[in-house]
Amino acid sequence: MAPPTLKLQEISQHNSQTSCWVIIKDNVYDVTEFLQEHPGGSSIILKYAGKDATLAYEPIHPLDALDKNSPPVQFVGQVESGTAQVLHRERESRKKTKDDIRVEEAHKRKPPLSRILSLADIEKVASQVLSHKAWAYYSSGADEQITHSENTRAFSRFFFHARVMRPVGDCDPSTTILGFRSSIPIFASGAALAKLGHPNGEANITRGAGKEGIIQMVSSNASLSYAEIISVAVPPQVLFFQLYKNKVDAVAEKRVREVERLGYQAIFLTVDAIVAGNREADIRSPWILEDEESGVTPVWDENVLPEGVNINGTAGALVNNDAKDMSFEKTIPWLRGITKLPIVIKGIQCVEDAVSAADAGVDGILLSNHGGRQLDYSMPPMEVLYRLRRQRPDIFDRLEVYIDGGAYRGTDVVKALCLGAKAVGFGRAFLYAQSAYGEAGVAKIIQLLKREIVTVMQLVGARTVSDLKPEMVERVDWEPLTRSKL
Amino acid sequence: MAPPTLKLQEISQHNSQTSCWVIIKDNVYDVTEFLQEHPGGSSIILKYAGKDATLAYEPIHPLDALDKNSPPVQFVGQVESGTAQVLHRERESRKKTKDDIRVEEAHKRKPPLSRILSLADIEKVASQVLSHKAWAYYSSGADEQITHSENTRAFSRFFFHARVMRPVGDCDPSTTILGFRSSIPIFASGAALAKLGHPNGEANITRGAGKEGIIQMVSSNASLSYAEIISVAVPPQVLFFQLYKNKVDAVAEKRVREVERLGYQAIFLTVDAIVAGNREADIRSPWILEDEESGVTPVWDENVLPEGVNINGTAGALVNNDAKDMSFEKTIPWLRGITKLPIVIKGIQCVEDAVSAADAGVDGILLSNHGGRQLDYSMPPMEVLYRLRRQRPDIFDRLEVYIDGGAYRGTDVVKALCLGAKAVGFGRAFLYAQSAYGEAGVAKIIQLLKREIVTVMQLVGARTVSDLKPEMVERVDWEPLTRSKL
Amino acid sequence: MAPPTLKLQEISQHNSQTSCWVIIKDNVYDVTEFLQEHPGGSSIILKYAGKDATLAYEPIHPLDALDKNSPPVQFVGQVESGTAQVLHRERESRKKTKDDIRVEEAHKRKPPLSRILSLADIEKVASQVLSHKAWAYYSSGADEQITHSENTRAFSRFFFHARVMRPVGDCDPSTTILGFRSSIPIFASGAALAKLGHPNGEANITRGAGKEGIIQMVSSNASLSYAEIISVAVPPQVLFFQLYKNKVDAVAEKRVREVERLGYQAIFLTVDAIVAGNREADIRSPWILEDEESGVTPVWDENVLPEGVNINGTAGALVNNDAKDMSFEKTIPWLRGITKLPIVIKGIQCVEDAVSAADAGVDGILLSNHGGRQLDYSMPPMEVLYRLRRQRPDIFDRLEVYIDGGAYRGTDVVKALCLGAKAVGFGRAFLYAQSAYGEAGVAKIIQLLKREIVTVMQLVGARTVSDLKPEMVERVDWEPLTRSKL
Amino acid sequence: MAPPTLKLQEISQHNSQTSCWVIIKDNVYDVTEFLQEHPGGSSIILKYAGKDATLAYEPIHPLDALDKNSPPVQFVGQVESGTAQVLHRERESRKKTKDDIRVEEAHKRKPPLSRILSLADIEKVASQVLSHKAWAYYSSGADEQITHSENTRAFSRFFFHARVMRPVGDCDPSTTILGFRSSIPIFASGAALAKLGHPNGEANITRGAGKEGIIQMVSSNASLSYAEIISVAVPPQVLFFQLYKNKVDAVAEKRVREVERLGYQAIFLTVDAIVAGNREADIRSPWILEDEESGVTPVWDENVLPEGVNINGTAGALVNNDAKDMSFEKTIPWLRGITKLPIVIKGIQCVEDAVSAADAGVDGILLSNHGGRQLDYSMPPMEVLYRLRRQRPDIFDRLEVYIDGGAYRGTDVVKALCLGAKAVGFGRAFLYAQSAYGEAGVAKIIQLLKREIVTVMQLVGARTVSDLKPEMVERVDWEPLTRSKL
Repeated sequence: MAPPTLKLQEISQHNSQTSCWVIIKDNVYDVTEFLQEHPGGSSIILKYAGKDATLAYEPIHPLDALDKNSPPVQFVGQVESGTAQVLHRERESRKKTKDDIRVEEAHKRKPPLSRILSLADIEKVASQVLSHKAWAYYSSGADEQITHSENTRAFSRFFFHARVMRPVGDCDPSTTILGFRSSIPIFASGAALAKLGHPNGEANITRGAGKEGIIQMVSSNASLSYAEIISVAVPPQVLFFQLYKNKVDAVAEKRVREVERLGYQAIFLTVDAIVAGNREADIRSPWILEDEESGVTPVWDENVLPEGVNINGTAGALVNNDAKDMSFEKTIPWLRGITKLPIVIKGIQCVEDAVSAADAGVDGILLSNHGGRQLDYSMPPMEVLYRLRRQRPDIFDRLEVYIDGGAYRGTDVVKALCLGAKAVGFGRAFLYAQSAYGEAGVAKIIQLLKREIVTVMQLVGARTVSDLKPEMVERVDWEPLTRSKL
Repeated sequence: MAPPTLKLQEISQHNSQTSCWVIIKDNVYDVTEFLQEHPGGSSIILKYAGKDATLAYEPIHPLDALDKNSPPVQFVGQVESGTAQVLHRERESRKKTKDDIRVEEAHKRKPPLSRILSLADIEKVASQVLSHKAWAYYSSGADEQITHSENTRAFSRFFFHARVMRPVGDCDPSTTILGFRSSIPIFASGAALAKLGHPNGEANITRGAGKEGIIQMVSSNASLSYAEIISVAVPPQVLFFQLYKNKVDAVAEKRVREVERLGYQAIFLTVDAIVAGNREADIRSPWILEDEESGVTPVWDENVLPEGVNINGTAGALVNNDAKDMSFEKTIPWLRGITKLPIVIKGIQCVEDAVSAADAGVDGILLSNHGGRQLDYSMPPMEVLYRLRRQRPDIFDRLEVYIDGGAYRGTDVVKALCLGAKAVGFGRAFLYAQSAYGEAGVAKIIQLLKREIVTVMQLVGARTVSDLKPEMVERVDWEPLTRSKL
Repeated sequence: MAPPTLKLQEISQHNSQTSCWVIIKDNVYDVTEFLQEHPGGSSIILKYAGKDATLAYEPIHPLDALDKNSPPVQFVGQVESGTAQVLHRERESRKKTKDDIRVEEAHKRKPPLSRILSLADIEKVASQVLSHKAWAYYSSGADEQITHSENTRAFSRFFFHARVMRPVGDCDPSTTILGFRSSIPIFASGAALAKLGHPNGEANITRGAGKEGIIQMVSSNASLSYAEIISVAVPPQVLFFQLYKNKVDAVAEKRVREVERLGYQAIFLTVDAIVAGNREADIRSPWILEDEESGVTPVWDENVLPEGVNINGTAGALVNNDAKDMSFEKTIPWLRGITKLPIVIKGIQCVEDAVSAADAGVDGILLSNHGGRQLDYSMPPMEVLYRLRRQRPDIFDRLEVYIDGGAYRGTDVVKALCLGAKAVGFGRAFLYAQSAYGEAGVAKIIQLLKREIVTVMQLVGARTVSDLKPEMVERVDWEPLTRSKL
Repeated sequence: MAPPTLKLQEISQHNSQTSCWVIIKDNVYDVTEFLQEHPGGSSIILKYAGKDATLAYEPIHPLDALDKNSPPVQFVGQVESGTAQVLHRERESRKKTKDDIRVEEAHKRKPPLSRILSLADIEKVASQVLSHKAWAYYSSGADEQITHSENTRAFSRFFFHARVMRPVGDCDPSTTILGFRSSIPIFASGAALAKLGHPNGEANITRGAGKEGIIQMVSSNASLSYAEIISVAVPPQVLFFQLYKNKVDAVAEKRVREVERLGYQAIFLTVDAIVAGNREADIRSPWILEDEESGVTPVWDENVLPEGVNINGTAGALVNNDAKDMSFEKTIPWLRGITKLPIVIKGIQCVEDAVSAADAGVDGILLSNHGGRQLDYSMPPMEVLYRLRRQRPDIFDRLEVYIDGGAYRGTDVVKALCLGAKAVGFGRAFLYAQSAYGEAGVAKIIQLLKREIVTVMQLVGARTVSDLKPEMVERVDWEPLTRSKL
């Protein structure tokens, strides 16, 4: 049965909390009942009540999100074809904002990929070519961003005791993660909303990781659907899934079973983001745009932030429905009960919880403070790793330990491996790389890290990752000059 | 009997140390005998001898100060009505100084309150909208202001061992202070001269604190009378009193009995400001204004500072008559003898004195160095708290411990609570908030702190304040990058 | 017998190493034999051979230096009166250098003394009103000036454990040094060439110190004679003498006996400047002037520095004839044998030498690294004092301990006293004060320090200097923000 | 037999990988077979296939390199004389690049050598007069150059416990290295490609070192031949040889025997540069030039860096053929077997390897991380020396210990000697000195260091280097202000 065809005039009458329709591409949806469930709040939807919401919708939602959100979202019909063409033209001819123009110009001026020599180089390009909104969301950390910068600075306190006169000619940097092979001891850590930076979104990371032989962890909050992402993977390429557990167990279970069915190979249960961190740069972003560009309504505006309501920018929208009452005692057995995949806890921030995780029998822990985006003054992962190595070296025999947050260089990766980490995750770096150069950018940073890791391994006297030992690093008691950041 | 009516010509003849009359609004006072008792010195009064002193008087004195100062101040009569109108018009048409104009412009440009995201934001607005004199008085610290900035930096040395997988969905940040309920574990610490920043003065803080459910400590040097302030409190709102003890016991006793009678619920005896700190920015303030604005006589001028005389700006004026010979042995029993209110010592700066205070039987101690305004290189309160926790944990069972000075964030508050503080005081923050946005600004910063405190508690794994434990923080051995200040 | 009268033409023929005459004011001297003995080298004299050397001579030599230098210097006669007038006019009309003009302008713009609030304030004025040459000589330190700045930073690592509730109303900051009373626990430490900064030179310090009741230590290298200096002292004012021991014992003995006869009350034997420190700013100074002012010959020029010769600016000239082979075993008994005055060793830089000094039986030691002007990376005196207190507290009972170098504030002085120092010396501060404001500047900084010391003593809970105890300070393990320097 | 004479037309036909001829001065060489062996890759040669390559060849190759490279390089004949003149004129009239012009101007403006007061001064001049390419190669370090700057900062953590009252008048700073006399305890450490900075190249260093009585270590990668260099030495001047061991033992042996025959007195086996460090400034250098100067082809261009190939700028070219599988067990005995010269390992970076070296029986170790050019976060040599002194003081009795990297001052040298170093090497300093002032610059920095070392020895109380003791330095627990760098 052909769907009903609707005229703009009719649609425009459904413009209130009582009856709210929105146009996404050529389709019309009734979202009245969904208003209260929208993670980002109802205000942002009501701005488009009775209107075309396509441009606001596309950059941050998977294409199949509307299907998944049913039943509360109801498909009403299609825009009549003449109107559809008008809307299409209007979208095309939408007056570019100053920020749009700045981004276009920056893309023209960016250096050729062959001139990118480091992750910092690519981050710099990303800072120039990303929209203000995307940069604010990707780069921001909690409060004063102390932990964000301390994550990186923590690596600087570790110096090498390099060993010489060892045969390292045929250095091999490969390793395994949960038994799956990785060409170098790094992985793409979960990070949301890749489409904000590039229309191909997370698929850029999938393709680049596949080409270079590393594993990608896909976020619950990916801007492509989990099926779309895994569909571009080339077997035997491995993908892991980063689970933000919904407060309703059944909803969470459905998601876990879905990704297992799709072929994801491990569950990284995220525990450090049960509420939104205070990312002021992200919250402030729409105001800055608004000030820059009077006349153009920003996606976020002041009215979204009524006094006293706890909404924290993009991050706030994403975690609204997540569980805030998990426990080692209940949540891990529940998860074991619904999946046979290996389970890793992502977001361990102290030695005590590393021990609890081992006692709970998980397969791995990812020492992480969410890239400094959640709790400011959370101990940097490299420091937690160091304490774990000194206080409880037995834990490394009971599960695999990974870290993410703050790493930029092959030296950082090798230092963490010396202390017992199995691999090091990179989050923002992949968002930046795909935003600046798409899939090729993703491959590039893996190549750069590989070259750096191999060089460092050879220079510290290690032929394989198993040759990297705690005595090869020393935590120094002085403060090195901080590496220059962007 | 109607008061005498006086002509300007007659008044103007009383213009010397021998006979000194001044006009305040429509009244004429003989202050000849008061000249030597004025805490700010006689010179500042003599500048207005025989003239209208209203504009200099109003911003820093409670309305009832003249009544209280009697008998040395004598009411002489009223200005005749024609003259009163002339003086009124003259005051209205007083040529605005460049600083007045700067302040007016700044008020027009300040951001809407909804865009204020942190205490640092509101401090920045205050730095723009305050008069030079007010900013110099509020913001200045002793000498090079090392302790002023170290108070804040001290918090940066404490990192969290955040605990995950704990049920914190219904987080409750409330606590009690001396048995009185507080919606969050903070209070408004005593701070003088709120009228310098806003015509409603301390009442702004009272109303905002009442609305949000926290306790205000009112300074002896408030620019509104203690009665005026408590009159705007809404029962069961609680106010504490910050006592600067006069060197004459009888004068001090009178003040204590007055505030007890008015309904204040505790006495915070201030012991760290028996002499004035060396706040150079405050002392220098009138010169800067004078240089900027030739022709306009500043309130303070060079002649107020004769060689070799110990006068320290506004602070010096305020403490001239305070006791400099207090002791635990004499002063606490004396105070116990004249009031039944709980007694807290404000200004404890080392472990030894915390013990002495406990031995003296007081109900609480406020670890404070007066916001870095008194002794430069006084140990930051957070460091004193840390030493107290390590060296004498028993003290926390014998009395309540608070700290103030340097806190800006929910993280700061939660760190102090982990180490055993019952609550954290904020001083300048409330002055800045009321100066920039009046009562609404005060409520705003309490809301901001509440949101931050709840978020931090949830992210470190605490459902109530009693879940915050010393092992949740570590004093790190490196120097984090300092948070950006104004 | 009237001295011979000489014509310019005759004088001008004695213009070589073989026969070298110079004119100083109206007198003509034959300095041929003195050329090789001049501490500053012969080149600088030969520039004026057969000419008027008055302007180069006056700012750095005592008026009686020529008398003292006899016999190698021989008085030849007087310039004939017509020529003398011509020379006088030429000196008067000497074209002012750009630096002269800058200095004159700076003196006009300097703030009134009543606006000077701290030693840093007066140092800033001095940096503006001093000639480039004088500033370079006064302010410079060795090499990168690390020790120069570390001397000051060392104080910043000590924080107070302030005690409250102690009777300090009638605080008394006076003390004794070698039994002589001092109104506050500071003294003017030896510093050379005060006339470079002010025509009255060292006498400014003598008068200011006398007025305010502190003791001045006079340098061997004073630019006024020792007799001139003590002649302006008002009994019972006390002066000490800083001895740079000549390599010839007899010459040194003559100097010691002279100052004892003149009434100086102690000998401070200087041991940290046996060779010149590498003060690059001082060495570089004439080149900078030369570049600035082409056509005007600088006092120092490149030719004075032949390749490979060890000459170190002004400092090098001053120490050329000093003893480089002193020892505790020989030098102290020798000195005891020629004077009955108390002996203090100035320049002790480690605990071991403090012990050696005590064993050698001297009356005091001045922990000093010559204000960072000699050995870069010499341990700051405050750190040496701290080590001495911890490692050898018995030394404080065997002799008096002083420190100098880096102190700016009352807090610095009180910290040193807490650790056992009897008094704190100030060197550059007095040169700066007298350069900027003459005698009044000297009195001013003593008053400022007195006010600061009294305030700090009261705020830490000390009524007298004997109440200051080691437990009142703690050497903290973090790095405070460095106080702003000039 | 006279070599064949070739016309340009004929030569230009050999312009491909199949047949590649190049002109160097008047000679024509067939380098077809050498293309794959060229350490810098074939692309850079192919740019000049069939053309005049003189200008690219000269600055980085010894004059006899072509002879040594035979047989793969074949001499074909000489350019006919008319063509030779044309080529000569073309080279002369080559359009100067902007960088050439900048360098010429900088040489005109540089200060006279007599105004150079320190190594930092001469480094500053070098930074101005060096070509961009040379500066990038000389000054660059690995990654963020943390170790490069930490090498210098490490010295700053050591302060002196200066001893006074010791006879140091006739201070003697001389020492021996491997039994050979050195006027001061420093040596010129191996550094490549001196011709990049000055046409006389390494010979400048040889002559300056000879004049001032210190020892030069000559790099395998010198831009003059080993014979040319030693030919300018004046007996009994001593030269050491820095060996980069070729991966083919026979090739390495040939080189060792050659230098022994030429008269070099020791072998410094380099072990910290088996692969190229990541010197981004060096890699980036040609792009910067290219951007600056469109139209002029840079020596390095983007095509040299195909994706994924591990080429690291100039450094990469130099180490391509070096051994990557050395070991203490095999390499040292092999070396002992082919030479009777003393053997020193250059590039020891931790205590464990210092012990291994002693166990392997070498004569000395040079604690070095290649001036921070190889492994970023390698422990600074001064810190390794400090650990060696504390953990294994016995090693200093078993072999001689030297350090290089980061030293700028006499204080640095004396600190290292206090801890047991026999001498301190300077690398970049000599490249900078000869680049800026040729041979005279080299002599100058030795004189400067001598003056500084003598002054420091006298001021710490040491008459000879054997008087320098570990107790004379203390590693302080605070961070001194970093000395200003270029």
